[in-house]
Amino acid sequence: MSSSQPLRGVVPPVCTPLHPSGDVDTVSLARHVEHLLSAGVHGLFALGSSGEAAFLTDRQRDVVLRTVVDSVAGRVPVLAGVIDMTTPRVLAHAEAAREAGADALVATAPFYARTHPREIARHYRTLGSRAGLPLYAYDIPVSVHGKLSVDLVRELAEDGTLAGLKDSSGDEGSLRRLVVALGGRHGRAAGPAPSFSILTGSELTVDCALLAGADGVVPGLGNVDPAGYVRLHDAVRAGDLDRAVGEQERLVELFGMVDAGPEDAMGRSSSAIGAFKHALRLLGVFAHGTTADPQIQLDDASVARVGERLRAAGLLPAR
Amino acid sequence: MSSSQPLRGVVPPVCTPLHPSGDVDTVSLARHVEHLLSAGVHGLFALGSSGEAAFLTDRQRDVVLRTVVDSVAGRVPVLAGVIDMTTPRVLAHAEAAREAGADALVATAPFYARTHPREIARHYRTLGSRAGLPLYAYDIPVSVHGKLSVDLVRELAEDGTLAGLKDSSGDEGSLRRLVVALGGRHGRAAGPAPSFSILTGSELTVDCALLAGADGVVPGLGNVDPAGYVRLHDAVRAGDLDRAVGEQERLVELFGMVDAGPEDAMGRSSSAIGAFKHALRLLGVFAHGTTADPQIQLDDASVARVGERLRAAGLLPAR
Amino acid sequence: MSSSQPLRGVVPPVCTPLHPSGDVDTVSLARHVEHLLSAGVHGLFALGSSGEAAFLTDRQRDVVLRTVVDSVAGRVPVLAGVIDMTTPRVLAHAEAAREAGADALVATAPFYARTHPREIARHYRTLGSRAGLPLYAYDIPVSVHGKLSVDLVRELAEDGTLAGLKDSSGDEGSLRRLVVALGGRHGRAAGPAPSFSILTGSELTVDCALLAGADGVVPGLGNVDPAGYVRLHDAVRAGDLDRAVGEQERLVELFGMVDAGPEDAMGRSSSAIGAFKHALRLLGVFAHGTTADPQIQLDDASVARVGERLRAAGLLPAR
Amino acid sequence: MSSSQPLRGVVPPVCTPLHPSGDVDTVSLARHVEHLLSAGVHGLFALGSSGEAAFLTDRQRDVVLRTVVDSVAGRVPVLAGVIDMTTPRVLAHAEAAREAGADALVATAPFYARTHPREIARHYRTLGSRAGLPLYAYDIPVSVHGKLSVDLVRELAEDGTLAGLKDSSGDEGSLRRLVVALGGRHGRAAGPAPSFSILTGSELTVDCALLAGADGVVPGLGNVDPAGYVRLHDAVRAGDLDRAVGEQERLVELFGMVDAGPEDAMGRSSSAIGAFKHALRLLGVFAHGTTADPQIQLDDASVARVGERLRAAGLLPAR
Repeated sequence: MSSSQPLRGVVPPVCTPLHPSGDVDTVSLARHVEHLLSAGVHGLFALGSSGEAAFLTDRQRDVVLRTVVDSVAGRVPVLAGVIDMTTPRVLAHAEAAREAGADALVATAPFYARTHPREIARHYRTLGSRAGLPLYAYDIPVSVHGKLSVDLVRELAEDGTLAGLKDSSGDEGSLRRLVVALGGRHGRAAGPAPSFSILTGSELTVDCALLAGADGVVPGLGNVDPAGYVRLHDAVRAGDLDRAVGEQERLVELFGMVDAGPEDAMGRSSSAIGAFKHALRLLGVFAHGTTADPQIQLDDASVARVGERLRAAGLLPAR
Repeated sequence: MSSSQPLRGVVPPVCTPLHPSGDVDTVSLARHVEHLLSAGVHGLFALGSSGEAAFLTDRQRDVVLRTVVDSVAGRVPVLAGVIDMTTPRVLAHAEAAREAGADALVATAPFYARTHPREIARHYRTLGSRAGLPLYAYDIPVSVHGKLSVDLVRELAEDGTLAGLKDSSGDEGSLRRLVVALGGRHGRAAGPAPSFSILTGSELTVDCALLAGADGVVPGLGNVDPAGYVRLHDAVRAGDLDRAVGEQERLVELFGMVDAGPEDAMGRSSSAIGAFKHALRLLGVFAHGTTADPQIQLDDASVARVGERLRAAGLLPAR
Repeated sequence: MSSSQPLRGVVPPVCTPLHPSGDVDTVSLARHVEHLLSAGVHGLFALGSSGEAAFLTDRQRDVVLRTVVDSVAGRVPVLAGVIDMTTPRVLAHAEAAREAGADALVATAPFYARTHPREIARHYRTLGSRAGLPLYAYDIPVSVHGKLSVDLVRELAEDGTLAGLKDSSGDEGSLRRLVVALGGRHGRAAGPAPSFSILTGSELTVDCALLAGADGVVPGLGNVDPAGYVRLHDAVRAGDLDRAVGEQERLVELFGMVDAGPEDAMGRSSSAIGAFKHALRLLGVFAHGTTADPQIQLDDASVARVGERLRAAGLLPAR
Repeated sequence: MSSSQPLRGVVPPVCTPLHPSGDVDTVSLARHVEHLLSAGVHGLFALGSSGEAAFLTDRQRDVVLRTVVDSVAGRVPVLAGVIDMTTPRVLAHAEAAREAGADALVATAPFYARTHPREIARHYRTLGSRAGLPLYAYDIPVSVHGKLSVDLVRELAEDGTLAGLKDSSGDEGSLRRLVVALGGRHGRAAGPAPSFSILTGSELTVDCALLAGADGVVPGLGNVDPAGYVRLHDAVRAGDLDRAVGEQERLVELFGMVDAGPEDAMGRSSSAIGAFKHALRLLGVFAHGTTADPQIQLDDASVARVGERLRAAGLLPAR
């Protein structure tokens, strides 16, 4: 990854297919990489939250990352999540990711451990200086239980610690403040961090984020409909906001699949990941819709709801 | 307010000028109403969070609302906040607001008391049937410590309980899901709640919210620069997104005034409200920048920072 | 209330009986005061959270407080909750409570409005100097969404702002730090705030709190079984911890009534308050078990579960 | 560990000494084990939060656990934390801990990943059936951001999934409900889970927890003053509550060291862990007070405050 230009475009957080035993299904994973690349995505993010990184052992993470890197074979950059509690543990994952051939790393602030903003800054500075690959900050308060402040991200962007931000905070106001702090939508190339890449993880407001100046998007739903997100991205880049909004609204409808699972019987996160995986199974990409332990599996009625969403979105033929 | 068309446009949440004694400064308030109306705003929201409703006694609330209603004299609709903990207390405020001449009411979910979603639905249904004025739900998790779900708002929109939503959640993904659930940006007029008005309180992403299908905006910063928000709104309506984004970025810079106060000595909320009020003083609208008890007042250095923001935004002449 | 001695003992937060119409049932309320006083309680706390203060209009609060004060007729001190969002609104309630004859006031930190610790200190200092009655801080994070720090309470105790603390935080470690900071269990009378009264609202660990040095308890469940709490208190004071623990365990069992209502259909708070009120109805004290709007009422099966708890605790004859 | 009797007594969560390089200082660790055992503690908990498990690599965790197990040499049981995000990752740590010779495992609910209560139950059941050692649930909401419910713990205690609970929630009311649900203080031996061990992590209210029926305590401060906690425990067991409270108050004073570090410059967690480690250095047990990355180190003034607390508590000679 060149450091002179920010990463731009659609960078799906790759879902990890599993066998019913819980082992990684590398055949489905390789097929999924082709599914995504053939849709024209601009990069891949392996071992993110949608990839169930939190549920994979170190050995499984390694299998996933090597499979993705090998399948991609240099066609697009591969970002690797290095999700763990603190600096020393993240550094261990960083070394493994570097050896597996990742192009960049994506790291959250510390979690489980409670840290001060100055300690979070130290965390990123240590990672930046020792990880040996471009570093993206992963802002995901729903998991980390804290938000990276605009000031901190700007500081770490300006001093070169960070190559970019993956913003899954859903806080579009803060993202806007960051864009403006870095020079504004049109001025960033001449601003203090011209190569810094801002990627939103908010898959329901991609038209808005790109309009506001984000460089790209990391949409979980992009596993299921990568071509839709590429069309959405291209429409914004072409200045056709009407088409972009139309595409975004179709994707919002499709996103409804995340609530397929019964609310009183399973988590919203396992419902969403299960829906994406079963959708990929229905689309012929994954062999199984299995999610990792201890998540509860979607039942048949829930899977049927996933199928309906796919048909309504035109991804499966109507019955 | 006609119920056949949703309220649209810029609806500032009116700041409440106070004398240093803490009494409402009705002269400044009347002047502020002219300041806002002459900028072309489409409605006013009195007694909201920016209006320090939480800090005003019932008697003061009455003075504020009557002053606003009298000053507006029917030129635009006046929405009145009825901010209190539970249904019986909100109903008491609703009666007062109706007598003072408000055109519509804006009510949060219960707070302090802990309530179940079904109890929140009851709350709005009781208010809707007994308050005697069109009812807006005020979704403000930062104060209420809960978020109104898309499903609940849709249900209350479709059954006619709610005339609209004032969304201060900052959750643009949920707002998008609501727009789509009600028929989509272009389809809402033919959808299940054609007259339902969606107003965003996210003053930093107004271009996006309007693009996504929101009907209007309730910007706290609109107290300071109402003309800027009207220009932003008009640019989106005219389809000139480039101009809209430029205007929005200027307003994001101006918004930086909210951090004028020292972080270790006062709250971020009192810093923001103090900044708005001192800006209005510097602009000649308010006689004082005083905020209500127990908020700490901005010191001189902080006020100087507010002035710098005004000058940078072109609202005060450069020195 | 003398300021030379801390308030000690059992001070139930008085539940407010309502007619099915929602009006205050003053006859039941007067009967309830007798029910409590005849059990030997040492004070009453009217208009607290268990008293549904958040649900009562100002007029209803006045009726409640006057009824309690009149019924008590000076036999024990009456503390009055002045629950509202900020200083000016709390001061208005304080004036009403003073006129109604309350002996002391109980005020939370600001809520809905977001305030800095220095602003919370200002809040209490203003109340303390202007309210005209001894002031208790009410630490109830579940409603206010912030905790009063040990340092702040100590500071306000030592400078005489506060007469006491009603600690409903459930944070026994902080309560312990406060006791030690004020001189320790045996040293408080000679410490920096000898007349400061520490009352715990944690009705399930009263034996512990009194052992640790708390002066008294404000138990919601004390509405239902005031004699049990008096026995528990007396046992600790007599140094009979074994008896105290036995009594506490019986009360923990009885407390299980708070989960009488179905979890998927109503809030835990309305279930608890409804259980207390129906228990009082079954005991012949209240005419109705009605809770205020918008709370959902306990259904018959839930009320039956309340009755079972009363029988198991020996408060109703076995069937 | 026999499964017929619950683990009882003082079980310190062993702090992990580090060299300034960040490597584990096994010499100091072995010395610390002797420091703790010679004070009469009843077990050790390695790799807990106080042991900085979140900051140690897998390799470091292994070094720590093997050093502790070897040093203990069977004199007391060694519980090993297996702190990680989800079931598959915890199982990997469990295997390592078993091989290293741990006597029991201590596992939190999933974190980072968001899970439903039914998924948390699955997590513990899978661990219980596959980990091959007695399993303790670690309830630590400050890190995991969720609380284990009384009903869930009871269910897992009664079906034999769990050997015990390490309760660091600070919620003494829930702990009391659990004790009562399992038969009460005196009735637990004849209750549904007679060998289930309840250990509190609330080091400031140990007298209360033991009085209420807890079996033991896991006090972070017990690293610094294990003899104090053993005296406290013995006093309660001997029925001498007055002596217990006196000892507890002394320990509360000593605990004040956790705030040694400046609040605006480092986290409260790194301040506390740094204080414990520097106290152990001042006591001659640790060679260094170093905490792991990215925590900020205590400065000299802060370390001086730690020393003052040790002198005040009689653990260091007065100057």
